[in-house]
Amino acid sequence: MAATSVFFSPLSLLRCSLAIRTYAPEAFISHRLGRNRRSPLPSISNSGRCLRHIAASTTNEEASAKAAAASAESGAPTIFDKIIAKEIPSTIVYEDDKVLAFRDISPQAPVHVLLIPKLRDGLTELGKAESRHGEILGHLLYVAKIVAEKEGIQDGFRVVINNGQQACQSVYHLHLHVLGGRQMKWPPG
Amino acid sequence: MAATSVFFSPLSLLRCSLAIRTYAPEAFISHRLGRNRRSPLPSISNSGRCLRHIAASTTNEEASAKAAAASAESGAPTIFDKIIAKEIPSTIVYEDDKVLAFRDISPQAPVHVLLIPKLRDGLTELGKAESRHGEILGHLLYVAKIVAEKEGIQDGFRVVINNGQQACQSVYHLHLHVLGGRQMKWPPG
Repeated sequence: MAATSVFFSPLSLLRCSLAIRTYAPEAFISHRLGRNRRSPLPSISNSGRCLRHIAASTTNEEASAKAAAASAESGAPTIFDKIIAKEIPSTIVYEDDKVLAFRDISPQAPVHVLLIPKLRDGLTELGKAESRHGEILGHLLYVAKIVAEKEGIQDGFRVVINNGQQACQSVYHLHLHVLGGRQMKWPPG
Repeated sequence: MAATSVFFSPLSLLRCSLAIRTYAPEAFISHRLGRNRRSPLPSISNSGRCLRHIAASTTNEEASAKAAAASAESGAPTIFDKIIAKEIPSTIVYEDDKVLAFRDISPQAPVHVLLIPKLRDGLTELGKAESRHGEILGHLLYVAKIVAEKEGIQDGFRVVINNGQQACQSVYHLHLHVLGGRQMKWPPG
């Protein structure tokens, strides 16, 4: 598998920055996920094993978000800067001069893409948005639709933005999750 | 409780359009929810009852989305038109000349607000977005931040857009869910 087949997520990227030195990216992914990249998650009501899996996933995301929140106000560069600079490989599914979309390393659906503005411009999170950000925010949502089309999920996809620790935000550079390819559940987490 | 304390959701509004003739809105809400409007949902791992509740909720949303999808392409008016016209009461938390934000009748978190463009302009769903929609899309995301501030959840909230049946979209008028006031889980549905 080529390096360009690596998938990144806010949570996993934090770990990946350490782990990538000791694991080939593919081994790292296989080690973490233990499943095929496009395999849909099992149904919430399928089995005790599934519920434990979901509980563990939730705990990990909450812990990661808590750690990230501690430095949220620093304005320090994030792992996304290295992805934008192509210093860390990612599987890019869309790119223009304003935004970048790439696969999540820990997909929560058969299609799970992260979509970010290339220039953070104060948008560590949606909660920092000002009226002057309207253009980039609109472009991000429009590109979410383009990504869905390119991924063949235009008839069924969910866009999610996490803001802050209670929403499991783990990288303080605004990002949209575009998920699809399976039946999404309700409530949304 | 005044009529202005009614909360609307895509799913429930479909039922509400029938039920409102036989229930006072408050009674209808109590009948459906059986809990306080701001009570957080129980943890996913708390009990079998909780899991059954979630499973039932998911099934209902999926069934509602399936029914709604059948007429998605018709472009017919939706229940949101009546809310925008104030023909059906809602608890409005933000309004300007372009958008309206009001509480969900079936909240999935202590704060659960729906945010819609007043003029649908072809946006039955995000998947119908064209580049000309950039301004309203950007304004919607910016107002999501304003809503979070007004609701006191600016430090932790999730924005969700469902597109199509597989994502549980049940009203074909673009709408953003703004949820907060509890720890959100992962995956997001």
